[in-house]
Amino acid sequence: MKIGIVGLGLIGGSLGLKLQSLNHTIYGIVNNEFNEKKAREKKLANFISCDLNLLKECQLIILALPIKDLISPSQRLLASIPKETIVTDVGSVKEQIVNTWENLHPLFIGSHPMAGTEKKGVDSGFEGLFENAKWIITPSQNSDLNALKTLSELIESMDCEICQASPKEHDEAVSLISHLPIFLASALIETVHTKNNQPLLDLTKRLAATGFADTSRVGGGNEQLGLDLAMNNQINVLNAINIFKNKLNRLETLIKERNWELLSDKLYASKEIRKNFID
Amino acid sequence: MKIGIVGLGLIGGSLGLKLQSLNHTIYGIVNNEFNEKKAREKKLANFISCDLNLLKECQLIILALPIKDLISPSQRLLASIPKETIVTDVGSVKEQIVNTWENLHPLFIGSHPMAGTEKKGVDSGFEGLFENAKWIITPSQNSDLNALKTLSELIESMDCEICQASPKEHDEAVSLISHLPIFLASALIETVHTKNNQPLLDLTKRLAATGFADTSRVGGGNEQLGLDLAMNNQINVLNAINIFKNKLNRLETLIKERNWELLSDKLYASKEIRKNFID
Repeated sequence: MKIGIVGLGLIGGSLGLKLQSLNHTIYGIVNNEFNEKKAREKKLANFISCDLNLLKECQLIILALPIKDLISPSQRLLASIPKETIVTDVGSVKEQIVNTWENLHPLFIGSHPMAGTEKKGVDSGFEGLFENAKWIITPSQNSDLNALKTLSELIESMDCEICQASPKEHDEAVSLISHLPIFLASALIETVHTKNNQPLLDLTKRLAATGFADTSRVGGGNEQLGLDLAMNNQINVLNAINIFKNKLNRLETLIKERNWELLSDKLYASKEIRKNFID
Repeated sequence: MKIGIVGLGLIGGSLGLKLQSLNHTIYGIVNNEFNEKKAREKKLANFISCDLNLLKECQLIILALPIKDLISPSQRLLASIPKETIVTDVGSVKEQIVNTWENLHPLFIGSHPMAGTEKKGVDSGFEGLFENAKWIITPSQNSDLNALKTLSELIESMDCEICQASPKEHDEAVSLISHLPIFLASALIETVHTKNNQPLLDLTKRLAATGFADTSRVGGGNEQLGLDLAMNNQINVLNAINIFKNKLNRLETLIKERNWELLSDKLYASKEIRKNFID
């Protein structure tokens, strides 16, 4: 297939490499000449340009842009997408993006590959990023079934596992399992950073081990990601924080009241529940 | 040296194996005949018995017992420790244990190896557990300097990095860096377990990836550990939860008020702070 990728950052660049390895012809769009040169050196696509007219050739276009550019796409981008071309995106929130694009393009289907690293930019893509990743597609009642079939087959050909969900369900689920941990990790990092007590801070730093490293890991990522999620999935994120606070308050009360039996039950239950999420 | 180990579970058993490899003679105490047989099969010590009189031979004794048995040691245990023997423990809280033991035995020095897995019992020990681990020793003004030197040399010979702190400092630092994450992880697991919304729960389970796995990992551990920490480091743990709640409330307010600039600053700051804790 002739596939266009708009944006050759971590996700777009990795897609370019992977899809070329599957013998598709890739048309990559970048936003400036510096990135054009870099992307050429890394061979992120067969054809690379800042000129959106390159997309005229494509049977399928993947929008690998920041969320804000997906929610408010430029007129130039819209004008360069042929009517008969299937379009998808890779944004990590879905409701606002799908609402926007379904009204703009009849063959749009939202999607979200759950893959990433802490890197970004035209230097960060690599062919193996999507290996065994989960890839959520969020069609609606209006979605074209042939477009859905073509997109699904393409995703499966990249060794990804497809999950199908409505945009609303997607945003609610990821707010719990993926967005909430980022804000918890950030608050945890701030908590251990006892900046008014240097001896305690020094000791705490020395004692940081794998438990803290793992619990705080997603708080060490690119701040733009956390910001994007808060901005574009605000209600769900706030709701997730609220549920979490209630659960933590309950544990706190049990500790305060020395209700060790119920605390033990709770800790046992969460250990068992976790096994259903992590195999 | 002739070294006694009271309790041959994960920590005690691993110590038995490691210290034998360093050519010490190990006297291991277990609590029943079933464990005695198991410990013999695994060669966790050179001599293994339920009889505390075995300790009479020892120049140094390591108490690898549950915290409750360290805070309220049995009269039989106390009677079997020779006056001139150096004694340490491996409990993960220190103030209560040190207060108890300094009054009971003049050559006691508290310690805490920061190493562990999710396993427990006489089957769980292995020689490599302490490799490159941090090992905190918590001497007080009353501590015998020769005992401190002997203990420090032994710990260093096991390829551990020694950190020295007062019992109070230790308990405060670990409440932040080690105990708090357990309760956060447990509350996070409960949060994603939306048991009144089965379709959401099913989707959330399917979407659980490395972010959730890492952030929740320490909530998947043995409930007895979390319980022990809450019981024996209650004030510090409650204080840590309280500080965390304030930090999370602050993030929540920024999200509610759409104060994206300050939220971005906060997320950036926590990313940078984390680098000081995790190399």
